[in-house]
Amino acid sequence: MSRRSLQHIEPVYPKSSSKKKFDHQGYGAGSPPYLRGPYASMYLKKPWTIRQYAGFSTAEESNEFYKNNLRGGQTGLSVAFDLPTHRGYDSDFKNIYADVGKSGVAIDSIEDMEMLFDGISLKDISVSMTMNGAVLPIMAFYICCALNQGVPLNELRGTLQNDILKEFMVRNTYIYPEKASMKIVSDIISYCSEHMPKFNPISISGYHMLEAGAPAEIELAYTLADGLEYVKTALDTGMKIDDFAPRLSFFFGIGMDHFTEISKLRAARVLWAQLMSEFNPENPKSLMLRTHCQTSGWSLTAQNPLNNICRTSLEAAAAAFGGTQSLHTNALDEAMTLPTPQTAKIARDTQLHLQLETKITKTVDPFGGSYVVEQLTDDLIEKASRLIESIINAGGMTQFIASGAPKERIAKAAIEKQAEIDSGKTLIIGLNSFTTDADESIKILKVDSTKVRKQQVERIQERKRSRSNKLVEEALEQLYLGAKNNTDNLLELSVIAAQKGATLGEMSYALERVYGRYSAVAHPIKGVYLAGVKDSKDYLEVKEQLKDYISKKGRAPRLLMSKMGQDGHDRGYGAVASALEDLGLEIHMTPLFQLPEEVAKKAVELEVDAVSMTSLTAAHSSLIPELKSSLQKHKSQALVILGGIIPKSEYTELHNKGVDLIFGPGTNILKAASLILKQL
Amino acid sequence: MSRRSLQHIEPVYPKSSSKKKFDHQGYGAGSPPYLRGPYASMYLKKPWTIRQYAGFSTAEESNEFYKNNLRGGQTGLSVAFDLPTHRGYDSDFKNIYADVGKSGVAIDSIEDMEMLFDGISLKDISVSMTMNGAVLPIMAFYICCALNQGVPLNELRGTLQNDILKEFMVRNTYIYPEKASMKIVSDIISYCSEHMPKFNPISISGYHMLEAGAPAEIELAYTLADGLEYVKTALDTGMKIDDFAPRLSFFFGIGMDHFTEISKLRAARVLWAQLMSEFNPENPKSLMLRTHCQTSGWSLTAQNPLNNICRTSLEAAAAAFGGTQSLHTNALDEAMTLPTPQTAKIARDTQLHLQLETKITKTVDPFGGSYVVEQLTDDLIEKASRLIESIINAGGMTQFIASGAPKERIAKAAIEKQAEIDSGKTLIIGLNSFTTDADESIKILKVDSTKVRKQQVERIQERKRSRSNKLVEEALEQLYLGAKNNTDNLLELSVIAAQKGATLGEMSYALERVYGRYSAVAHPIKGVYLAGVKDSKDYLEVKEQLKDYISKKGRAPRLLMSKMGQDGHDRGYGAVASALEDLGLEIHMTPLFQLPEEVAKKAVELEVDAVSMTSLTAAHSSLIPELKSSLQKHKSQALVILGGIIPKSEYTELHNKGVDLIFGPGTNILKAASLILKQL
Repeated sequence: MSRRSLQHIEPVYPKSSSKKKFDHQGYGAGSPPYLRGPYASMYLKKPWTIRQYAGFSTAEESNEFYKNNLRGGQTGLSVAFDLPTHRGYDSDFKNIYADVGKSGVAIDSIEDMEMLFDGISLKDISVSMTMNGAVLPIMAFYICCALNQGVPLNELRGTLQNDILKEFMVRNTYIYPEKASMKIVSDIISYCSEHMPKFNPISISGYHMLEAGAPAEIELAYTLADGLEYVKTALDTGMKIDDFAPRLSFFFGIGMDHFTEISKLRAARVLWAQLMSEFNPENPKSLMLRTHCQTSGWSLTAQNPLNNICRTSLEAAAAAFGGTQSLHTNALDEAMTLPTPQTAKIARDTQLHLQLETKITKTVDPFGGSYVVEQLTDDLIEKASRLIESIINAGGMTQFIASGAPKERIAKAAIEKQAEIDSGKTLIIGLNSFTTDADESIKILKVDSTKVRKQQVERIQERKRSRSNKLVEEALEQLYLGAKNNTDNLLELSVIAAQKGATLGEMSYALERVYGRYSAVAHPIKGVYLAGVKDSKDYLEVKEQLKDYISKKGRAPRLLMSKMGQDGHDRGYGAVASALEDLGLEIHMTPLFQLPEEVAKKAVELEVDAVSMTSLTAAHSSLIPELKSSLQKHKSQALVILGGIIPKSEYTELHNKGVDLIFGPGTNILKAASLILKQL
Repeated sequence: MSRRSLQHIEPVYPKSSSKKKFDHQGYGAGSPPYLRGPYASMYLKKPWTIRQYAGFSTAEESNEFYKNNLRGGQTGLSVAFDLPTHRGYDSDFKNIYADVGKSGVAIDSIEDMEMLFDGISLKDISVSMTMNGAVLPIMAFYICCALNQGVPLNELRGTLQNDILKEFMVRNTYIYPEKASMKIVSDIISYCSEHMPKFNPISISGYHMLEAGAPAEIELAYTLADGLEYVKTALDTGMKIDDFAPRLSFFFGIGMDHFTEISKLRAARVLWAQLMSEFNPENPKSLMLRTHCQTSGWSLTAQNPLNNICRTSLEAAAAAFGGTQSLHTNALDEAMTLPTPQTAKIARDTQLHLQLETKITKTVDPFGGSYVVEQLTDDLIEKASRLIESIINAGGMTQFIASGAPKERIAKAAIEKQAEIDSGKTLIIGLNSFTTDADESIKILKVDSTKVRKQQVERIQERKRSRSNKLVEEALEQLYLGAKNNTDNLLELSVIAAQKGATLGEMSYALERVYGRYSAVAHPIKGVYLAGVKDSKDYLEVKEQLKDYISKKGRAPRLLMSKMGQDGHDRGYGAVASALEDLGLEIHMTPLFQLPEEVAKKAVELEVDAVSMTSLTAAHSSLIPELKSSLQKHKSQALVILGGIIPKSEYTELHNKGVDLIFGPGTNILKAASLILKQL
C-alpha cells in the first residue's frame, strides 16, 4: 500500500484487456515474429543480464576486476582482449609492444585464460568474448580452461562475437581474407552446435556500424544481411537450420535517438524472423532474434564527463524498452580512457537503477501500441527490408563487402555527421553548445604496457620451456594442413594445439601460412564534408587562411595521416582525412597497422609539411617518441600532430616529447584545420 | 542524411495515419480533455522551460547564481526563499537567526527583491516564486520591482506557488489559519486576473505530497481537489470562471516509477478538464491543466551521489514523456546540501540533453497509444476520480484538511515506505542494496548565516532610517484594517505598504494581529511501521535489545524528538517517531518551530533519556550547540541525537559540539534504534 506498489502494472496489455480496445497487430512477446520480445515473460522473471565489457593489462588484474564487478551486482562477464591478441600476435611479437594490455587483456596461452577465470566458475557465469580475428585460439583456450575446471562443454553458457564480416566494414581487427575468415566462422558454429548447445557461437554485430556513423536502417540491414550470410555458410557445410539457428545472437548499439533505438530492436526481431522463415525451420527459436546491446561510446563527450551518466542512462533505458537480453553501459570516462573501478561501478549501477528502482521491468514492451514507436518500427522494417533485398540480389554480404560499398556508405555517414556537428547543425552539449572551461579532473586508469609485456613475455618463455615443443609442432602442422586441405574442423584442431601448449601467435601463424594476412588501403572520400560545412563562418575563415598559405608557399600544405599500432578503428581517421582534403589540404593516408619507422620514411619520401597520428588506444605514449626520433633520424622538419582519445593530463608530457598539436575527442575539424594552418 | 536525421518522426501519430489503425480515443493534444498535452504542437515549437529552483544566502549572491544559470542554458527562473521569509519574519527577528539565508534567499524588503533581479529583465524572463505563507509581501515586492524596472504589470510572466492548502498537509510553511489563508489566495487570484493576465497567480502543488510519500492517485486527487477549492473560493468573490481559470497552474513531482509518473500527468489533464467542465467555461483554456514538474528529491541518496544523475535523468525523461510545461531537475548533491554551481550545471544539462540530443521533443505524447501507459492513465483517472468525489462529498478540501485525514493518510504512506526500505522489500541502490564504503567527497556549499544575517540586518536598519515611518505605519494600519474588516484586496494594500517601505515582517505581522498564527501538534502514528518490518531479522534484534534494556532499567527508554528552527518538512520527523514508538520506545514529540531552550526545558520536565533534533536545512549548525548548552544549564544528561540531511564532512565537528549520535539521509530506523539502545 505504498507509493511505489499501489500502481499495479499488468505484465502484458493485450488487445482484449485494453479498455481502449486498440486494434493492434496481435504480435505478442514470445511468439514469432517476436515484435514485442523474444520471450513471453521478458524481464518479469529475470531482467536483462548486466554484462559489462571489460579487460585490461594482465589476466591477473582483469580477473580481480571481474570478481569485484560480480560482487557489485554484475550478472555476466564480457572479456575485452588487447589488440595484439585480436590480431593474432603473442605479446612477445616484435612490432606490437605499444598495444600490449592497453585496451584489453593480453592472452597468449591457456595459462593466461585460466588466470583470467581463476575463482570464477564457467559453469555458473555466462561469458561473452569479443573476438573476431583470433577466434580459433581464444575459443580453444576457453574450451580447455572449462575442461580443466571440470565443466562439461554442454554446460558452457556465453557468446563469442566471431562476426568477421563487420570487421571488413568498420573495425578492421581481421587477420585473414574474407573467404578464409568465413570458413573459420562456420567451423566454430559447427563445433558449438555439436558440443556446446548452450553457447552462442556468434554475435552478429551492428554496434560498430552505429559507432562508425551508420543510420539505424543501415545498421539493421547490414547486420541482418551478415547474419544471413553466416546462416548460408553454415547450411553449406551440411548443417540443418535448427542445429544452429537458435543459438545465433546479435549485438546492437544504442544511441541518443531514443524512439528510433527502441524501434530498431523491435524491427530487428521482426526482420530476422521474416528472413529465417525462408529456411522453414521447425524450431520457432530459429526465428528468434536475441541481442546484447551497448550504449553508444560515440555519444559521450570528454567535456563535462559527468554528463555522460545522463546520456548513458537514457540510452540504457532505450535498450530496455526495446527488449534487449543483455546490456553494457559505458562508463562516464569512456570517451577518454578505460574505466576505473569507480566509474565502472556507476555504469553498472545505472542498470541496477533501471532494474530495481523504476519498475520498467514489470511490463513487457512498454512502447507496444505507442503510435510513434509502432510507426517507426514499421518504417524501419520497410527501409531495412529493401536494403537487405538489394544485398541479396547483389550476391550476398561477402560479395557486397568485397565491393567496398558498405564501408564507403558508413564512412560517408560518419563524415556527414562530423560536418553537421562542426557546422552546429547538430548540437552536443558541452562540445559545440553550452561549453565551459570548467576543471574536469577525472582519475585516469593508466596501463603500463612495458610492465605488462615483460610479464607476458616471461610467461610465454616459461610455457615454451615447459611444454613438449615436438608435440606442439605436430599439432600446429595438423592445423596448417587442416586449413590447407580444407578438411578437418579448425576449432577441433586448435583445441588440440592449445592442449599441447601452443600459443595464440603460433596458432594464428599456422593459418596465416595458408591464408595470408588481409590488408586494406585507406583513402579520403570527397565532397561529403564540404557540402555540410560550406555555409559556416568557420569554413570561410579556413578558406581565407589557405588562400594566404598558397599565395605564399605556392602550393597547399601536404599532410601525411597515419594509423600506427594495432588499432583498426578508422572512423575518425577517415572522417578527418576526408574533411581536411575537402578543405583544400593535400592529404596522404598510410594503411592501418603501421610502424613509426614506416610512417617517418613515407613522410620524408612525400616531403610532407606535417605528419599526424590518430590514436584511440593509448598506444601513442610509446609510438609518438619513436615517430619523432625516426623523423629526426631522417632530418624531417615536419610538424607532428596527434589526434584521438588523448587525456588532457598527458598534453604537457606529449608536447615535451615533440608533439606540436594535439586534438582531443570532439575536435571541430574546421577549427583544427585553422590551427594547423596557423602553425605551418 | 546522417544517422540522427534519417529517421523522420511525425509530430503526431493520429489514428488515420497509423498503419496499425489503432482505435484510440481520439483525444489529441491541444483540445479538451487534453489527454495528450495542453498544446497541439507541444515541444515541437518550443520545448519545456528549463526552470531550476534556486536561491540561497543574500539577494546579491542568488542574483549572480541566476545570471550564470541563464547564460548556461536555463530558460526560466524559480526563486527559493529562506524559511524566515516563508514564515513572515524579517532577518532581524529574534528567534530565526539559524535559518537566515540557509535553504533559500533572504528577502526582507523591496531593495532585496530589486537586487535579486538586478540585470534580469522581468519583461523577458518568466519567474516562478515558491511562496505560500508570506505571499502578500513577496508578491507586492515583485510587483514594485517590475514597476521600478518599467515593466507594465500586464506583461509580467511567471508563477506564484501560493498553494496554502497543501502546506497544512505536508510542508507546514503556513502563517495564518486555513480560512484567512484562503482569503489571501483569492485576493491574489483576483488581483492578477485584473492586472496581470499573463501571470499564473497560483501553482497547485502535488510535489510535496509525492515527496512526503503519497501514492500517485492521492497526489492527483488531493492536488486537484485543492485546485477545485481555489476555484470555488474565487467564484465566491464574484469572479467568472474564465477570468482566472486559464491562468491556474499546477506542480507535480516525478519519481522513479516511470510509467506511473508519465500516466499521472496525462491523467491529471483529463481529470482537471472533467472537473472544470462542471463550471461551463466558454474559454477552452479554462479546462486546460498546465504544469511544472520537479524530479523527486526523495529518490536521491547521499550514498554514491553520482548515481543521482542517473535517477534524475530517468525522472526528467518521464516528466517530458508526460508532457510537462516546465521542469526542475535536482542536483546530484540535493540529498545532502544546496547545489554548487558545478552540480547545478549538471542538473541543467540533463534537460539540455533531453531537449537537444534525444529527439524526444520531435513528437507529441510518445506514449500515446502505448497499451501500458494508456491503461495506467485510465486506472489513475478512475481511482483519483473516486477520491475527489469523496472529498467533494465531505464538504471540500478545506474542511477535509481541517479533519486531519489527508495529512494522516500521507504520513501513513511515508511510514509504509520507510518500513519497506528498512525491511529490504524495496531496494534502493547504494542505500539498502549494493552498498559500498567508497570515498564520496563532494564539495559542499556552505552558507554562513551569521554573515548573511548581519548584512540583512544592516540593510533593514538602513531602510528603516531612510523611509518615512509615519507613512509606513499608515499603510500597515490600512492593511490591518483591510484584513480585519474583510473589505479591500489585501494585495493592493500590500503593494502600497511595500511602496512606502514596509518590510516583509511588518506586513506579515499586520495580518497576524488579525488572523493569529496557526500551529499544529505532531503525534506518532501507531502500527503501520511495525506491520511492515515485523518479520525482518533486524526487528527481532531490536526487540531483544529492548527486552534487555527494560529488564535492567524497569522501563522503555524515553526519547523527546524535536523540530527546531523554521523548517516545516515533517515527513521524516513523523515517520521516525512512529517507527520508534512501534519498536517499543517511549516517544514524545515537540511541535514544529521550537527554540533550543524550549526543547531543553521539555526534556528536563519529561526526564527523557535522549533528545533528538531532525534537521533538513542546515540550521542544526547553530541550533545544536545552543540545545547542548541549554541541556547543560538544566543539568540534563540526556543523549543528544541528530538526524536528517547532515553532510558526512560535518560529523566530527558535530560530535565535538556534543552530539552523541548522527543519522544521515537514508538511515535504516531498525539499525538506528539498535544503535540508540546500545548507546543508552
